[in-house]
Amino acid sequence: VHNRATTAIVKLEDLPTPSLILDRSRASRNVARLKSHLSRLKVPLRPHLKSSKSLELAQLLMSSPTGPATVSTVKEAEVLADAGVRDILYGVGIAPSKLLRIVALRRRGIDVIVVLDSYEQALAVVSACRDVRERIPVLIEIDSDGHRSGISPGDPQLVEIGRLLADGGAELRGVMTHAGGSYGRPGVEDLMAAAESERIAAVRCAEDLRQAGLSCDVVSVGSTPTAFFAKDLTGVTEVRAGVFVFLDLVMAGLGVCTPGDIALSVLATVIGRQEKKGWILVDAGWMAMSLDRGTEKQKTDYGFGLVCDVKGVPYPDLIVIDANQEHGILSIRSGGGSRSELPNLPVGSLVRILPNHACATAAQFDRYHVVNEISTEIVAVWPRFSGW
Amino acid sequence: VHNRATTAIVKLEDLPTPSLILDRSRASRNVARLKSHLSRLKVPLRPHLKSSKSLELAQLLMSSPTGPATVSTVKEAEVLADAGVRDILYGVGIAPSKLLRIVALRRRGIDVIVVLDSYEQALAVVSACRDVRERIPVLIEIDSDGHRSGISPGDPQLVEIGRLLADGGAELRGVMTHAGGSYGRPGVEDLMAAAESERIAAVRCAEDLRQAGLSCDVVSVGSTPTAFFAKDLTGVTEVRAGVFVFLDLVMAGLGVCTPGDIALSVLATVIGRQEKKGWILVDAGWMAMSLDRGTEKQKTDYGFGLVCDVKGVPYPDLIVIDANQEHGILSIRSGGGSRSELPNLPVGSLVRILPNHACATAAQFDRYHVVNEISTEIVAVWPRFSGW
Repeated sequence: VHNRATTAIVKLEDLPTPSLILDRSRASRNVARLKSHLSRLKVPLRPHLKSSKSLELAQLLMSSPTGPATVSTVKEAEVLADAGVRDILYGVGIAPSKLLRIVALRRRGIDVIVVLDSYEQALAVVSACRDVRERIPVLIEIDSDGHRSGISPGDPQLVEIGRLLADGGAELRGVMTHAGGSYGRPGVEDLMAAAESERIAAVRCAEDLRQAGLSCDVVSVGSTPTAFFAKDLTGVTEVRAGVFVFLDLVMAGLGVCTPGDIALSVLATVIGRQEKKGWILVDAGWMAMSLDRGTEKQKTDYGFGLVCDVKGVPYPDLIVIDANQEHGILSIRSGGGSRSELPNLPVGSLVRILPNHACATAAQFDRYHVVNEISTEIVAVWPRFSGW
Repeated sequence: VHNRATTAIVKLEDLPTPSLILDRSRASRNVARLKSHLSRLKVPLRPHLKSSKSLELAQLLMSSPTGPATVSTVKEAEVLADAGVRDILYGVGIAPSKLLRIVALRRRGIDVIVVLDSYEQALAVVSACRDVRERIPVLIEIDSDGHRSGISPGDPQLVEIGRLLADGGAELRGVMTHAGGSYGRPGVEDLMAAAESERIAAVRCAEDLRQAGLSCDVVSVGSTPTAFFAKDLTGVTEVRAGVFVFLDLVMAGLGVCTPGDIALSVLATVIGRQEKKGWILVDAGWMAMSLDRGTEKQKTDYGFGLVCDVKGVPYPDLIVIDANQEHGILSIRSGGGSRSELPNLPVGSLVRILPNHACATAAQFDRYHVVNEISTEIVAVWPRFSGW
């Protein structure tokens, strides 16, 4: 019996399961693909680091070691600031109680920008600016597709809020929107249309602010599907996207990528079979995969994930059909070709499972085990941060 | 501006959001309820600590500081062993590669028991027993309702595996089953029937082993619904359950409890409104609530959770209808009474959200903030462990 603690883990075969695996070759290709697309459109990327929550991945995604970056929690901003990032958009509508931590970061010289879509929030920001004698920069959130938050284009509140901020001592820096509705619009044509709607809403609201005599330097848009499929970004000053580094089965279902582009997977061990039912049991349940069922309403429902061999090559139509906390049940998906057979995977075999939603699956782990395509050698271990 | 790091957090109102809140009064009542029921049935509890993953909650659940306990990962066993627990059932089918860590724990004097349901696994255990000269104790898993893993009652494999273990130098300690199918059977009558099926399957398999001349001291059954609704546990030597300490909306939908019994909630802050749509936005999305949609197929669909005020009193029919990573959208549920109105919750208001599935929601956080019913004073902070 070897002592696990003193045996160096150098290959996937040595890892405890479940473990989170990042294919760096694929991740690098995904990043290069989006950067090259945006560079053709001449718009810089402000990557959203909520998907990856890793300092090493932040450096792969950002255009410089100091940013710019987008985050979804103040905690992410704090961790990134400690690591030297200086230009951070906190992309979730500001809660007044969070302004203290934002101000603390700004006093360390970090340019943290907040987002809001209500007069109440603007009042809280203005009040904080007065209290701390600090011009907090603000982007007003625009609702470009009705899916969540933001001010609708044409709503007179936009200019009212802008004026309150400008007059009240905040810095009105611009507008931002997120075409989250694009996740429900598969196909190249629809994604291109979603990207154009996103652009038009943001640019129109920026114009409305400028015509009211207010400044609006920043016009920030983005989601992974619209970032990849935008054809024209006239008037836009930056694009945000996060999951593009990993991609996932939901993105494949939308037509953004193929399963072969997905850079994230969960390593699992076979722990049983139910022959009569055509089931294989593994030790990766929802605690490892997350409970995301994002492909359920797509054309191909992958259950809780698509199963690959240890090198990342998919078994035809083998998916995780059900999951308990630490059990995954593998079977051939209904609708899979009749030629698809349950592979011969004895107890102890290793598999890798591609996730529906990379952000949710990655969040179940505290580190990435990094490999390069085909090889099962672990070339790095990258910690993840979490919490609020 | 106060420095948050040096200001003591003593009330819910001082917490960053989202945060995980545990109502200790409710948790204690839930634990007392199950213990009193099982004590009437004269069967001890081996609590499943996968739901709570906390040393403080372990002490509330276990009958003694040293156990017994059930766990779902080897990591849980290791953390509990470090804290003095000596009697631990690892309740997920054993992967051969995990036997090294099991043996390492046993050599520290911890009675770790493994579970298996295949000849292949039994061979691996027997081989490990030979290699390390250690009699690893084993429960054979029985399939009492077809929902996942285990050997079907009547399958001759049961005795074959039992014999292999006994002859090969392992310790055949007994059988175990988990009526996970009970989660799909709402109502008192059906849950009582599920409990009785679970008992009969386990007792019958124990008898089969004994009639073959094999020993079977342990007959272990359990799930939260069947543990609460078992009327007779003749032949059963221990009951396992985990989520009973928290309870949740899925358990309420099954008829196990009412929402007023649920001891776990997520504290969130209102960050916006979409008046025309009847939406309130909060800073608790799926990263805080988990993606569990366990009430979707129940009579009352609570979306991603039921919304309460800061003291834990539900707003009629106000639920989380949709969730993104860090955004929750609150609205009146369809099917809610027409008298249900969106409450007046301005930006900055605090709410508490009851989860669909407490195990999944708790797993999104690294600590519990402990309160006692009605009061918003934080009386303790209990860390959670995680990972594998």
